[in-house]
Amino acid sequence: MKVSLDDIRQAQTRIAPHIRKTPLMEATTVAEPPTPARLWLKLENLQVTGSFKARGATSKLLTLPPAELAAGVVTASGGNHGLATARAATMAKVPATIYVPENVAPYKVDKLRAMGAKVIVTGSVWNETNRFATAFAEETGAAYFHPFADPAVVAGQGSLALEILEERPGLTAVLIAIGGGGLITGMAIALKALKPSIRIIGVEPVGCPTFHASIEAGHVVPVQKVTTRVATMACAETDPEVFELSSSLIDEVVLIEDEDMVSAARYLWSEFGLAADLSGAAAIAALRTGRVAFSKGDEVCALVCGAGTEGIPGGR
Amino acid sequence: MKVSLDDIRQAQTRIAPHIRKTPLMEATTVAEPPTPARLWLKLENLQVTGSFKARGATSKLLTLPPAELAAGVVTASGGNHGLATARAATMAKVPATIYVPENVAPYKVDKLRAMGAKVIVTGSVWNETNRFATAFAEETGAAYFHPFADPAVVAGQGSLALEILEERPGLTAVLIAIGGGGLITGMAIALKALKPSIRIIGVEPVGCPTFHASIEAGHVVPVQKVTTRVATMACAETDPEVFELSSSLIDEVVLIEDEDMVSAARYLWSEFGLAADLSGAAAIAALRTGRVAFSKGDEVCALVCGAGTEGIPGGR
Repeated sequence: MKVSLDDIRQAQTRIAPHIRKTPLMEATTVAEPPTPARLWLKLENLQVTGSFKARGATSKLLTLPPAELAAGVVTASGGNHGLATARAATMAKVPATIYVPENVAPYKVDKLRAMGAKVIVTGSVWNETNRFATAFAEETGAAYFHPFADPAVVAGQGSLALEILEERPGLTAVLIAIGGGGLITGMAIALKALKPSIRIIGVEPVGCPTFHASIEAGHVVPVQKVTTRVATMACAETDPEVFELSSSLIDEVVLIEDEDMVSAARYLWSEFGLAADLSGAAAIAALRTGRVAFSKGDEVCALVCGAGTEGIPGGR
Repeated sequence: MKVSLDDIRQAQTRIAPHIRKTPLMEATTVAEPPTPARLWLKLENLQVTGSFKARGATSKLLTLPPAELAAGVVTASGGNHGLATARAATMAKVPATIYVPENVAPYKVDKLRAMGAKVIVTGSVWNETNRFATAFAEETGAAYFHPFADPAVVAGQGSLALEILEERPGLTAVLIAIGGGGLITGMAIALKALKPSIRIIGVEPVGCPTFHASIEAGHVVPVQKVTTRVATMACAETDPEVFELSSSLIDEVVLIEDEDMVSAARYLWSEFGLAADLSGAAAIAALRTGRVAFSKGDEVCALVCGAGTEGIPGGR
């Protein structure tokens, strides 16, 4: 697999009419600042379909010839990539089949169904769920949209990095939640190409340290026991080619507890009126727990990568 | 009462270190566009305390000498101005007493209490609740923060208009929800001074047409029977001096049903991942119901003036 800065630029141009330029809001006048650095929140929770995943799925869709879409599209997803793929299917006017794991957030299933997608709930972690999706693709000829191991998807997610650097070239660090690794890989390629000095910090749950474990081992290793309940971050094993692209570009991967994400989602709601899902709150959780620290001169961007109700009173 | 463009500029400077510059996001790639015009959402739901009210309350606080704050602060509010006043009290390190009507959103009461405010739930509409607040101020000497009939508050809210015009001078119309009238008054003064051609459209609930009825009558008239359940818009009577300042600057006031706001809040959530309260969804409701229409060349700003959970699955 190859993904270059140029591929990412092309993806950005390709998807521009179909996605939203989301705000980069400075986190000012905060009662309990999570860092002494200047902090920006990139609000991808306000993106089309509720997360950055719309970038990758749209990028993928627009590289496929219509004939390959005739039998519909299929994917396996913790929820957000499923929503993005379902929307891509709507754009192409073909049916979507979305496999989701059992711990998917229920409102995401409702939203998928409201979009007209066929939803099948199966498997306890993504890799398990995904076996059903790939089998379905083989049987039916539906176009399979991999959530991360696909250069068109990785390039699409990378467009997010172009957007934030364009708006704030002075950024010194970016905090990125890791699920399968597509987002951090696309972003790392663009960020380090444009600004080699920028620090890239990945954030994973203690209960599914996919990249953390693989970087430590020097090669992709599967997580033996996934214990996180955050569906969008419960990918037990990344793709070797994706890992190869980004493992040397990532400066650090920090691990946080599920409860840190719940607490961060509540904080995003009470402090900023933001409705983030747990992975969307992961970057802020890494800051609030002190797992990663910055100093006053730093300019840090935390991605709020997905919308959700987990931090909202009564939200489910 | 006098509020000039210059007063609003001074308020903007005064409050700048204490409030947030909120994003103005273009509502692009929307499945069911609510208007053929170009549409921007001003995200004051991401403002400090969850609404634009932080502007007015902070502006007021900073005009008061410390001696007048010694006995604490008090107000009556549908919720948002109460939160903003409670925060002002925190800034001044004095106690806050907030009177709220019985139909206040429960999560706003929880948030007020979490901020350390004393909350008293009483009265079915704001004007009733307010009698208790003013009596409390007289008895205790606490500084009373009127939610709209105060030039410092009106000037603070007006800063919102400076912010949006600075970012999008091409705007041709602005949609503004009306509660007591402080926001639309401050904004109308600034908008019409800087761009006389801009259309200013107020939005009120059918069940509390405070400005609509008064403009029709040519003078302030009380709404005899308030039937809206939207606490932040249930002000039965505006202030004559506030009305005098803005009634001739408002081009139109449109009326919407409570259910239109509920539906618009759900739309803001599903389409944009935004958690707005019902008044925060009012401007979008006016567009979606066709109560106000724009054409393709228009550039319209809809204020999402407050955060809330009313459009969120399970939110309360």
